[in-house]
Parts: sequence; C-alpha cells; structure tokens
Amino acid sequence: MPELPVDSVGLVTPQTAHFDDPLALACGRTLPAYDLVYETYGTLNAERSNAVLICHALSGHHHAAGYHDADERKPGWWDAHIGPGKSIDTERFFVVSLNNLGGCHGSTGPNRENPETGRLWGPEFPMVTVSDWVNSQVRLADRLGIERFAAVIGGSLGGMQALQWTLAYPERVASAAVIAATSKLSAQNIAFNEVARQAIRSDPDFHDGWYTEHDTVPRRGLKLARMVGHITYLSEDAMGHRFGRDLRADDLNFGFDVEFQVESYLRYQGDTFSSSFDANTYLLMTKALDYFDPAQGGDLASALAPASCPFLVVSFTTDWRFPPPRSRELVNALVRAGKSVSYANIDSTHGHDAFLMPEPRYQAVFAAFMDRVAGDLGLETRA
Amino acid sequence: MPELPVDSVGLVTPQTAHFDDPLALACGRTLPAYDLVYETYGTLNAERSNAVLICHALSGHHHAAGYHDADERKPGWWDAHIGPGKSIDTERFFVVSLNNLGGCHGSTGPNRENPETGRLWGPEFPMVTVSDWVNSQVRLADRLGIERFAAVIGGSLGGMQALQWTLAYPERVASAAVIAATSKLSAQNIAFNEVARQAIRSDPDFHDGWYTEHDTVPRRGLKLARMVGHITYLSEDAMGHRFGRDLRADDLNFGFDVEFQVESYLRYQGDTFSSSFDANTYLLMTKALDYFDPAQGGDLASALAPASCPFLVVSFTTDWRFPPPRSRELVNALVRAGKSVSYANIDSTHGHDAFLMPEPRYQAVFAAFMDRVAGDLGLETRA
Repeated sequence: MPELPVDSVGLVTPQTAHFDDPLALACGRTLPAYDLVYETYGTLNAERSNAVLICHALSGHHHAAGYHDADERKPGWWDAHIGPGKSIDTERFFVVSLNNLGGCHGSTGPNRENPETGRLWGPEFPMVTVSDWVNSQVRLADRLGIERFAAVIGGSLGGMQALQWTLAYPERVASAAVIAATSKLSAQNIAFNEVARQAIRSDPDFHDGWYTEHDTVPRRGLKLARMVGHITYLSEDAMGHRFGRDLRADDLNFGFDVEFQVESYLRYQGDTFSSSFDANTYLLMTKALDYFDPAQGGDLASALAPASCPFLVVSFTTDWRFPPPRSRELVNALVRAGKSVSYANIDSTHGHDAFLMPEPRYQAVFAAFMDRVAGDLGLETRA
Repeated sequence: MPELPVDSVGLVTPQTAHFDDPLALACGRTLPAYDLVYETYGTLNAERSNAVLICHALSGHHHAAGYHDADERKPGWWDAHIGPGKSIDTERFFVVSLNNLGGCHGSTGPNRENPETGRLWGPEFPMVTVSDWVNSQVRLADRLGIERFAAVIGGSLGGMQALQWTLAYPERVASAAVIAATSKLSAQNIAFNEVARQAIRSDPDFHDGWYTEHDTVPRRGLKLARMVGHITYLSEDAMGHRFGRDLRADDLNFGFDVEFQVESYLRYQGDTFSSSFDANTYLLMTKALDYFDPAQGGDLASALAPASCPFLVVSFTTDWRFPPPRSRELVNALVRAGKSVSYANIDSTHGHDAFLMPEPRYQAVFAAFMDRVAGDLGLETRA
C-alpha cells in the first residue's frame, strides 16, 4: 500500500446524515426529507468550539481533503489547505465538509430517488439557493452538536455560503473567510452561466432533464458547459504561458481535429467532466450562483448589518471570473457597515482557480487568519 | 418610399466577379474557379488612385454601407464610417467591399455549388486563410483596374487582412488601417473559438457539415457559438450598464425560462444569427482567425520588414477580445521595424464592438488619417 503524505488527513470515509424534518425552500417548495453526505477531519474538542465548516463551489463536493483509499490518485479538492500543519490545521480544528443539496455526490439531489414518486428526482428537484443550503447546513451542525462554528469558509460559490452564514446565523459563526467570491454575479457572469445552461438544455440527449430514464446523458452539452467554464477559471496569461499557440503536431493540419494544445486541453477537461458530473446538478448550481444577492439590488453595507464576526476576504490578481474589484466592493461595504475585515489581494497567475492552489502568500495570510481565530477562541495554538 | 439619410451612400447593388484562374491555397488545395461578391461606393478617379479596400470580420460580408433597397431596416455594417463626409469619405474615395471566399453571402463558399460534384461545397470547401483571402482580393483589384489601394482597412479579422496586404503586396498598398485587431490570437482567443466550433460540430443536426442535404441546420450549435461570441464582443461594463441584474419579470421564477434581461438578449442574438448564417462558414472563419500569425512564432518586427506604407492602429479601452496591449504589441513591432505608424487607444464602453460604432474620437482619428492619405496621394481634399 503506497504511503500517504505526512501532512495529509489520511484515509477518510464519507458519512450520511438523514433529516426527516421538512425544509422550506426559497422557491416556495418544501423538501420533505433529505440526506446530506459529509466528511470530517480532525477532532471536535470537549467544548465543541473548534469546528470549521467548508462550503464547496460549483462542481465541488464533500471530499475536501485526504483520500478515500490509498490508491486514490488525487486527494480531496482543498487538500492544499486542510491537514496537519496546513492553513486549516486539523491538529486544532475539527473540519466539516458536505455535499450540498442538489449536488450529485450522494446528498439528496436530481440523481437520487424521489421517495414520493419512486423515480429519480431529475428535473423535478426544486431550485435551491445559497440561503437554502445554509439552512440545511445549520441542521447538519445541530446533528453534530456544533452550536457555533469557529469559522465558515468557502471559495467562489462557497464564499457566498460563508457570507450568507454571517447574515442569517450571526450567532453561530465566530469568523468567516470569503475567498475569490462576490456578493452578486455581474451580467457577464450570468451570461456565461446562461451559455452553459443552454448548451445542456439544448442537447437532444437532455430529454427535459429525464436523460437517465432514457439511458443517456447530455454529454455534448455538459462538455461545452465545462469548456466555457474552464476558460473563465484560468487567466488569459495562465493559458498563454501554459499553451501559447503551441501546436500538438509539427504542422498545421488545416482541418477540425485538434491543432493547438489549448484545444486538446479543453476537450479533455470537457470530456472528463461530462462523464462524471450530473447535468441537472450543474443547472441548479449555476442558478444558485445567479440568484445570490443579499443586498437584493440595494445597499450592500445595509444588507451586511446583521453580521457580527471578523471576516477574511481574499482575491487573486488574475481572477477575471470574480475579479479583485468584486472583493474590494465587499470589503468596502463591510468597512462601511463597521465590521472587522482583513483583505488580501494575492499575486497569482492562476486566475480564479488560484483559490484551490498552494500559493505561499495565500497560505500565509490564510494561516495567520486561522491563528487569530484559534487565539480568539482560546484554542491550543500551533507548536 | 422613405428617404435615405443624406450622409448615406444611398442604394447600392452587389456585383459578382467570376474568376477562372485557379487559386492555390495555403492548405495545399486549389480552387479551380470562384466568384467574389462585392459592392463599391463612390467613384474611381481617372488616375485610379483613390480606391480603398474594406476587409470584413468573422460574421461580416460585402454590404458595408448604404441600403439594398429603401425599405432595408439597417444600412451596411460599417455605415457609421463610410459615406459622404464620413471617415472614409465617398466623395473622394472609391470604396470596395467584398465577401471573402468561404463566406455565406454570395461569394464561393460552403453554401454554393461545387461544379465538380454538383453538390454544395459544404464541409468539402477548403480551409482558407487570411493570406488566401488577400491573394483573392488582389485578383479583384486587378479586375477593377486598381494597381494600388490608397488604403486597405479592416477591423478585427479585417484588420488582419489589412496587415497581411502590407506584407504580401507592399507595392499595392499606400496605407493600412488595422483596427481592434491583433497580429495573432492568444490561447484564450483560440479557446473561445474552439468552444464555438465544438458547439456547432457536436450538434446532431450538423451531419458532418452536410446539414443542407439533410434539410436541416445546426441551429442549436450556431446559437451557442454566437452567444459565446457575443459575450466576448461586449465589455463586462457595457453588459453591466445595459442589463445589470435586471429581471425580465417582477419576480424570480425559480425555473429555467429567461429571468435576467441579459439572458433574453443573448438568446435573441443567438436565435437571430442561427437562422441567417452558415455553420460551415462560421467554422472556416474561426480557423482563419486561429491560423493568422505572420511572425509564425518568431519576431514580429522582422516579419513586418516587407511593409512600406504608413499605418493607423486603433484599439478600444474596454475591448477584451483583442485588448489594447495586443495593438501596442503591433505598434511597438512596427516602430522597431522602422515603419510609420499612428496609434490611438479610444475610450469606449462598447468592448470589441466599438470598432463598428460612431465614437466621436475614433471618427476624428480615423478621418484625420484618411485626410493624410488623401493629401499624400494628392487627392482632392474635403470642402
């Protein structure tokens, strides 16, 4: 058996929490019962004061750190930041990471059975919002005996959930980290999401969302959606440095096969994603992004009034999906609302994807913030 | 009959030039014969020295100015800049505008019959490059008795053609205007083109390019391609100002119908385009964009050595498809190569589309350049 890295949380096993109390959703519908799949890393202390909640982004899930088995090729999606001695240090924090409602990795969502019909939920799964997710996460916290999180943390769509926690449940969040996020999507962001949705929904294999019952998958649409997404996750410079105008073969082929390396990369990313992710979930997640706007078109600082915890806001210089001005807008509103906020704009060439990566200055800022969180709560500090 | 604006070239009639001398293409194939559809505005002077060639962009054509009939809703695509008293003043210049080979507006291309097979050319139409287009445009110039153009002018992909003219036929160009263009696409530009191509080619109605023979059109793919394109033509700010997060109805519908105005706009643009443009042509045009790189990966200044005319280079501040640094790269290379070049970076909120619009400073710069062109050639100057 191959050895796991020493700074890894090691082997982890997902767990499932079942909830029977109906959950009223923003769309007006109610989920009568649901499952949430989650993982935990580290140990909950006796005071139950060291829990950290990790919220995932568009295509994320509960598997944020460690390995499901020793042969797993890659660890969880945020393994760069969660583990012994890492920014979110599992030697002092108890980390909870879940798959959101509507997801496709085990929590109740379109690819699970609807007990009322005996069919998969499919397109009949209700539209869920960031606010709904946070409400469901509160119930998971109750189940785990966590009255108050030491920190709620997320990148991108996950950052929106962290922000929503501070507004809806200020008494249950001791600190929040909002990374590579925005308080609302721009028209351009919505436009890209709409292209992705149209790609999926116009695929003849979509069958109005009942593709599974037709023994198929809208693979072409999902591939296109992911290709468009990927362009927005990488910076223009990163793409330039990584691929430039490099050809895959020595000469131009003057045809429609792959000619440039960047085409090959995008097709590969699209193909991989389209065989592993659920199309209905992708549609739901993009809508949750579109809808988020705690200020509801009004003044953001006023909307932030309920928040009471210190914030960390992080942006990345080459992120053009949620660029630094979006983070500064949030920081300025927090300041105007009289909240405590630390802000770092991290130099990175990796675009939006930088939030997933081990950039040293990002790690230092993140770790310093978590140190302060630990100090404020009187948790054991690092050796 | 409604009256036409006084600064319009008025009613125009497209003409067709047929060529029987085979044209060898960069891809290695040869077009045995072909038609070019073109329009002209103004009058060729006795010295034949006042001709200006307009080169079109991705979805453009020969109808650059004026009206085909008095009921036409919109004039030609560059009517803001071509006409009596406009930047390209038809009272002193004789303007030639053509539909390029591979186009879908009357010139030989995928939607025309291949005389050798009796079928439409369809996907068997050869791949054409910017260099091929310029070679075909030279033959049109010969046919019209134009030994040397007073100016070759284009925006976007049209700007690439203007640049190629100065390198391949320096003795036949007295000046060149390269607007909102680049000397080569970036990896990100190629990536967006690849998404558009995959959208079209993966549409089941594409039928490997033989859709017409199947009595259909890859409408879904073409719509998606255009939606992606449109996002890159508009600036984020322009989209924000125009649509923001405005809803089409009063409330969220929590469904997949149009909710935000920007979705409605994009769907409309995509639908309109998909019922009027040929998919095979769109594929060819995006490949011509990808291939253009006169420096072939080497030093641009060296590649520009053959050019001998003065240049005007124009970029627009919010153009993120071919942003100002791409124009400055060209300007710097022209300077290093010892060429005469004027450069203007125009403040505009309209993104890449700004090159089509009547921005006053853009018009002033453009008109001043054309005045100098007229002066250098001893043409009659403006009243």
